[in-house]
Amino acid sequence: MYSFSNRMNEVSARAVREILKLTADPNVIAFSAGSPANEAFPIETIQEIMNEAMEKNGTKVLQYGITEGLDLLREAYLNHLAVPKGLSVSIDNIMTTTGATQGIHLACDVFLDPGDVVLVESPSFLSTLMLFKKYFVKCIPLEMDEDGIMIEDLEEKIRLHQPKMLYTIPTFQNPTGKTLPEERRKKIAELASENNVIVLEDDPYGDLRYRGEEISPIKKFDQSGHVILINSFSKIISPGLRVGAIVADEKILGKMTVSKQFADTHTTTLAQYVCAEFLNRNLLPEHLISIRQLYKERMETMLNWMEVYFPKGTNYTKPDGGLFIWAELPGECNTQELLKKAVADYQVAFVPGAPYYINPQDGRNFMRLNFSANTPEKIQEGMKRLSDLFSENHKF
Amino acid sequence: MYSFSNRMNEVSARAVREILKLTADPNVIAFSAGSPANEAFPIETIQEIMNEAMEKNGTKVLQYGITEGLDLLREAYLNHLAVPKGLSVSIDNIMTTTGATQGIHLACDVFLDPGDVVLVESPSFLSTLMLFKKYFVKCIPLEMDEDGIMIEDLEEKIRLHQPKMLYTIPTFQNPTGKTLPEERRKKIAELASENNVIVLEDDPYGDLRYRGEEISPIKKFDQSGHVILINSFSKIISPGLRVGAIVADEKILGKMTVSKQFADTHTTTLAQYVCAEFLNRNLLPEHLISIRQLYKERMETMLNWMEVYFPKGTNYTKPDGGLFIWAELPGECNTQELLKKAVADYQVAFVPGAPYYINPQDGRNFMRLNFSANTPEKIQEGMKRLSDLFSENHKF
Repeated sequence: MYSFSNRMNEVSARAVREILKLTADPNVIAFSAGSPANEAFPIETIQEIMNEAMEKNGTKVLQYGITEGLDLLREAYLNHLAVPKGLSVSIDNIMTTTGATQGIHLACDVFLDPGDVVLVESPSFLSTLMLFKKYFVKCIPLEMDEDGIMIEDLEEKIRLHQPKMLYTIPTFQNPTGKTLPEERRKKIAELASENNVIVLEDDPYGDLRYRGEEISPIKKFDQSGHVILINSFSKIISPGLRVGAIVADEKILGKMTVSKQFADTHTTTLAQYVCAEFLNRNLLPEHLISIRQLYKERMETMLNWMEVYFPKGTNYTKPDGGLFIWAELPGECNTQELLKKAVADYQVAFVPGAPYYINPQDGRNFMRLNFSANTPEKIQEGMKRLSDLFSENHKF
Repeated sequence: MYSFSNRMNEVSARAVREILKLTADPNVIAFSAGSPANEAFPIETIQEIMNEAMEKNGTKVLQYGITEGLDLLREAYLNHLAVPKGLSVSIDNIMTTTGATQGIHLACDVFLDPGDVVLVESPSFLSTLMLFKKYFVKCIPLEMDEDGIMIEDLEEKIRLHQPKMLYTIPTFQNPTGKTLPEERRKKIAELASENNVIVLEDDPYGDLRYRGEEISPIKKFDQSGHVILINSFSKIISPGLRVGAIVADEKILGKMTVSKQFADTHTTTLAQYVCAEFLNRNLLPEHLISIRQLYKERMETMLNWMEVYFPKGTNYTKPDGGLFIWAELPGECNTQELLKKAVADYQVAFVPGAPYYINPQDGRNFMRLNFSANTPEKIQEGMKRLSDLFSENHKF
C-alpha cells in the first residue's frame, strides 16, 4: 500500500474539521466557527458589480490572469486600505491571494526550512500552529499579558532561540481578542530588523473595531522590509469569494509570486474584481459601519449573558473588536471533554482551548466563543445552554 | 538580511513568467501561452448563472464553504464528466480545487518526501517539472515514441528506481500533443498497482478532441486506488474561474483535503457554482462541439502553414486534440536563442524546448506552438514571421 509524505503525518486537521462539523447541525447553537454573520453580506451590491464585470470585462474575467493579482484590486487595496493605515508602500508591495490562508502558507513556503524556530503567541490561531508542523519547524510560545506579546519575553526568546520568524495576530487576536499597543508594535518592528526576524503579521480582523482608537499595523513601523502583512476580505466583505492581500517587500513578493504560481496560478479574477470595485465605489466605509454595529451588539449581548450565566470566577476577555471572546473557567476543568457533552446533550458548541497551545495541557480550562455568527436571541439561548452544561457537569 | 527557504532556491518561475510576458505585448503574435481563445468564453451564459446563484443562494455563495468542494459541483462532475468516461466512482472520490495547478500541488504535498523518485515523460509540462524541484525529489525521464510512454522503458525504470510517483499527461500531452493508447493505459494502471507507484494523471485537455476516438483515462483501469486523476475546467469553460477537480481514492482525498485546508480553505464558491450549473444545464456538450470546431480549424491552419513555412526536415506532431504542436527543427539549433530574436526582430513568440526536459540540452531543437489563442489570420501571419526568422537566422 502507498504511504503518505512525512509532512502529512505531522498534521491533522481534525480540530478544525470537527469545529466545522459542529456548525453543520442547525439544532446546535455554534459559537465555534469564525464566520461572518449571514446577515452581513452585501448580496445585491456584489451581484451588481459582477454584472458590471461580465458586461464590461467578460473576456478578461474569464481568461488567465497574472499571478501577482488583478491590478485593479492591487491599486484599490493600496488607495483604500494600505495608504489610509499609514503604510508607505506602492502597488509593487501588494499581491492578492486566495484568502489570508494562502498568504500565510506562501510566507511559510518561502521562508521556513526544517528545524527553523518560529515564535508564536500563546495561545495562537490553531490552523497556523498546525501548518507550522508541516514545515518541521520548532514553535516557541510567547507569553501574553492582557495586551498581547510582552516585549521583554520576546527579547529574551529572540536571544535564546534566534528565530527565523515571529507569527503574530496583533489586533483582536485569535483566539483571545487582545490588541497589541502601538508602542509594542514599534518595538517589534525594531527587534525584527535588528535580529533579522521575519514578522508574519496576520490581520484579518483589524477593521472590525467596536470601541477605542484605531492602531496602525506593525507593518507601518517596518523600516527594513522584515514585516509581512497578511490581510483578508473574508471578514469585511465575504469569505466565499476567497480573496486576501499581502503587503511586503518587493523581493519577498517576488518569491511569493513564484510560490503562488505553483499553488494555484492566480486567484479567481471575478472575486478579485468584486473586492476591487467594492473599494473603488467607496462602499467599504459605510459597510463597515453597519457590520461593526451588528457585531458590537452581538458581542455586548454575549458579554452580558456571560456575566449572568458563567460560573463565578470565570475570566474572560472584553475585546475592542474582532470576532472572539476567550474564557477561562475556574477549577479543575477539561473543555475538550465538556465540548462533547455540550454538543450531545445541550446542543451548543464552542472551541476548546487545547489546540491553540503548543502544549495542549495549557488550554484545559479555556474556550473560544464566537459572537458574530449568531443573532442576539440565539446568543442568549446558547449562553443559557452553556449555563446548564456547567451547572450539571462541572463543580467549580 | 533575511534568507529564503532552501526550496525556493531550487525553483525559478522565470521560464513560465517569460512566456506570460511575451504574450502581454499586443504586437507580438504569441504561440507561447496555453490560453483558450478569447472567443471561446460563454460570457452571457456564465453571467446568467451567476445571477441565479446570487439570487437563489447569495448567502451560501458568500459564506465559508467546505474544503472538499461544493456538493453541487462534485455531483455534477460525477454525473457529467466522471461516469460518462467510465469511472466507477462516487462523490466521495471527488474534490474540487483551485485549478488543476492546485490538484498537482496537493498530490505532491501529500506524497513526496525529499529523495523520492518521480518518473516523468520526456518532455513534460515545465511547471510541474519545476514544482518537483521544490519537493527535492529526483526526476527520471521516460522515453516516448509517437504514442507516448513506452511500457518496456517504464517497466525497466520502475525496476531500477523504485519510484514513488509517475507523472503523466496521457491525452494530447503538453508539450507534444501525443496520446497514449488504451492498452498502454491499462498496463500503466497494472504496473502502478503491482509496484506501489502513485500515478498522477494530469488531464486538462482530454475533452478537446478534434479527430479519432475517445480514450478512457488511466483512472478507469485503476483497481487499487493508485491513480489520481487531475482535471480542470480551465480549457473547457474558463481559466479565470480557477476551478479544477480531482478523482482519487477516498483515503488520498482525505489527506488532500487537509492539505487544501492549509492552502486556501476552499475554492471560490461562485466559481464552483458556475461550473456545476454549466454541467447540470447540460450546456457542456454543445459548448465542446463549438470550441472543438474553433480549435480544430486553428490547428489545421497552423499545420498547413508549417508545411509551407517551416524548414525542410522539420519534424512536428499532428495531434488529435489539445492545444499544442511540438516541432523539432533540423540541424544545429538553439531555440532559446532563436526566441530572443523572434520576439525582438520578428514579433512572434513560441516556447523553446529546453525547460520541458530534465536535461535542458535535449530540448535545443524543439519548440512548442500553441494554436488555440490566435485567429487563423494571425496564425498564418505568425507562421510567415517564423519563416523569415528561420531563413535569416539559421542555416539548416
